[in-house]
Amino acid sequence: MEKFQHGGDIYNTSGVAEKFLDFSANINPHGLSEKIFQALQENLREIVNYPDANATELKSKIAHRYNVPTENLILLNGAAEFFYLYLFVTRPKKILLPVPSFSEYERAAHAANCEVEYFFLAEEDNFKLDAEKFLAQLKTSGADCVILGRPNNPTGNLISIADLQKISAEVPVVADESFIDFLSAESVRNFVNKNLIAVQSLTKIFAIPGLRLGFAVAEKNLAEKLNAAKDVWNVNFLAQKAGSIALSDEKFLAETRSWLEVEKKFFIEQLENLPVKVFESGVNFVLFKVESEKLAQEILQSLRTEKILLRDCANFVGLDGRFLRTAIRSRTENILLLEALKKKFLPQ
Amino acid sequence: MEKFQHGGDIYNTSGVAEKFLDFSANINPHGLSEKIFQALQENLREIVNYPDANATELKSKIAHRYNVPTENLILLNGAAEFFYLYLFVTRPKKILLPVPSFSEYERAAHAANCEVEYFFLAEEDNFKLDAEKFLAQLKTSGADCVILGRPNNPTGNLISIADLQKISAEVPVVADESFIDFLSAESVRNFVNKNLIAVQSLTKIFAIPGLRLGFAVAEKNLAEKLNAAKDVWNVNFLAQKAGSIALSDEKFLAETRSWLEVEKKFFIEQLENLPVKVFESGVNFVLFKVESEKLAQEILQSLRTEKILLRDCANFVGLDGRFLRTAIRSRTENILLLEALKKKFLPQ
Repeated sequence: MEKFQHGGDIYNTSGVAEKFLDFSANINPHGLSEKIFQALQENLREIVNYPDANATELKSKIAHRYNVPTENLILLNGAAEFFYLYLFVTRPKKILLPVPSFSEYERAAHAANCEVEYFFLAEEDNFKLDAEKFLAQLKTSGADCVILGRPNNPTGNLISIADLQKISAEVPVVADESFIDFLSAESVRNFVNKNLIAVQSLTKIFAIPGLRLGFAVAEKNLAEKLNAAKDVWNVNFLAQKAGSIALSDEKFLAETRSWLEVEKKFFIEQLENLPVKVFESGVNFVLFKVESEKLAQEILQSLRTEKILLRDCANFVGLDGRFLRTAIRSRTENILLLEALKKKFLPQ
Repeated sequence: MEKFQHGGDIYNTSGVAEKFLDFSANINPHGLSEKIFQALQENLREIVNYPDANATELKSKIAHRYNVPTENLILLNGAAEFFYLYLFVTRPKKILLPVPSFSEYERAAHAANCEVEYFFLAEEDNFKLDAEKFLAQLKTSGADCVILGRPNNPTGNLISIADLQKISAEVPVVADESFIDFLSAESVRNFVNKNLIAVQSLTKIFAIPGLRLGFAVAEKNLAEKLNAAKDVWNVNFLAQKAGSIALSDEKFLAETRSWLEVEKKFFIEQLENLPVKVFESGVNFVLFKVESEKLAQEILQSLRTEKILLRDCANFVGLDGRFLRTAIRSRTENILLLEALKKKFLPQ
C-alpha cells in the first residue's frame, strides 16, 4: 500500500475517525452551513435515484456565481480527480512542476506515464515563482505541460495572472485554484484559453470534503473532450445538492473572507512571536519552519497527544522535516494551538 | 452536449427530479434499507472531514463479504468509473464488444482512443454469447481487450465462468458484474487472474445510485497500478459509510433474492400474456420486443403520461426501436405497469 501523503488523516488503522483538532487539513473553520446541512437532511432519501447526469442545476449555479459559460465546465468528484483526467486525456510527455506543491500533480503524472521535472521555488524568495527563471527552465526542459497551485499549497503563494499568461503562451498550464475562494484575488477561470485551464475545489471553502466536489473551466472543445472521458454520474447526488445550495448563499463567502482577514493577521502575529520562521501566505494556511527536524517531530508528537494535528511537510519535494503547515481556524481553536506551541518552545 | 444514453433519467430540463414510477433504471425495489438511512443521518455532519483515503472499514467489509483479499480491490465512485480508469491505464489498441450492451464500455473506449469492433449477439439465440464464434472473431479482429456484462445489460444473459476463462486465455477480459448480487450465480471476482478482472456496482443492489459506489477485483499488481491512477478520495464518506453498513446486513441480500425469484416468475408470465416477445433473463430486468417502432414509441409516450418510465432500447447498438427494457419492481408497481400495458395492447 502507498504511504498516505496528505493532511486530514484522522482515521486510525481500523478506519475509525478520531476526534482531532485538525490543523493539517485546510477546511473552512466556519464549518458546514446549516443551509447545506438541512438540504442534505431533507433530500437524503433521494439517493435511491441516480444523480442528474447533466447536473443542470449545479452547472447553472457555478456558471452564475463564477461568471463562466456552462459549456466550459467539467464537474468533478473533488478537484484531485482532474489531474488524472487531464493527463490521461492530453498525454503530455513531460511536465514541469514548481515545488514544493500538492503531491497529487506528480502522482497523476506518474500514472499517465508522464516524465516529471522539478522547478525548485526558492525559500529565500518566500517560495514565490520567478517567471523568468521558470520560463528559462521550461525551455531547456522540453516540458510540454505545467501544473501549479494558485495559491500554491503548502506555500500559500499566488502567481499573477500576467505571469501565468506568459507561461501558457509556451505550453498548456493547469492552475489549481482550490483555495482561491478564500481570497478576493482575480481567478484564472475568467481567462481560460486553449492553453490555460482552471480547476477548483468546492469542498474546502464549503467544508464538505467528505462529499467530494470540484469543477474545472477549460476552453470549450477541451471541456467537451474531458467530459467525454469520465462517466456522467461522477458527482454524486448529495454533492450536487450541497454545491447548488452553497453557491446560492452569498453571505457565507463574504463572512469567510472577512473572518480570514482578521484571523490571519492575529494568527501570524502570534506565530511570529515564537522562534519559528513564518512564510508569507495569501490564504487560509501558513507554512513555517522550526530549527531542526528533531524539534519538528517533537512538536508534532506532543501536539498529537493533545489531539491537535499539524501537517508534517517532510514529504513535500523541495521541503524537509523542519517545515510544518497549519490551517488557520477559529480564534478559540487558534489560541489552543498557539498555547500548545508556546508550551513547547518556552517550557515553564 | 452529448445525448443522454441511459435509464433513470428522471430530471427535467431545469434539473429538477420528477416523480416517476421508474422501470427504466434497474434499482432494487426494496429501496434504501433503514439501517443505511439511519447511519447516513447519524453521520451526516461528518462530511466536514475527508473520506478515509484507505477506506479501511469498507475494504474489510467487501473482502469479508465477497471473500477477496483487500490487496486485490479497487474502490470506485460507481462501477462506470472503472471502464475509463482501466482503459486509460492499460491502453488496449482494439476492444471487441459483444452488443447489445451497456454503452459506457464503448464511450470509455473512445475516450482512451481505443478502436471498437462489435460482436453481434443473436436475437434468435436469446442474445446468448456463443463462445466459439466469439473466439473466432476475436482472432480475426486482432482485438486485445474484451469488456462484457455478466449478466449482460440489457439482455439479462449470463456468460459461464468456463467460457470467460476460454476468452481470457487469449486477451484481458473485464467482466462487469454490476447486477450479479441479484442472482446466486458464481462470480468472476473469485477467479481473477492477470487477464480476468471483475467489476461490480453496489448502488443497484443497495438502492444507493445517488451516492455512487462500486469496486473492482484485479490481480494484485494490476490492482496496485489502477489504484495509483485515481485519487485516493474517490469514494465519498457517505458512500463508504453506506457500503460498510449494507455489507454487514446479511438479511437484505437474501430477501432481495427470494423476492426476485417469486416476482420475476409472476412478472414474466404476465408479460408473456401480452403480444410481445420476451427474452429470457437471469436478473432483475427484462428485455422485450413489440411489433413496431411506432408501437414502442406509443407505449413509451402513453406510459409517460401515466408517470411510468420504461427504457427505450433504440440507442443500444444491436437493437432497434422495437426493443424495450423494464426493471422488475414490487408486486403493486409491476401490476400498475402490466395494467397500463394491457390497456395499450387491448384497448377497451
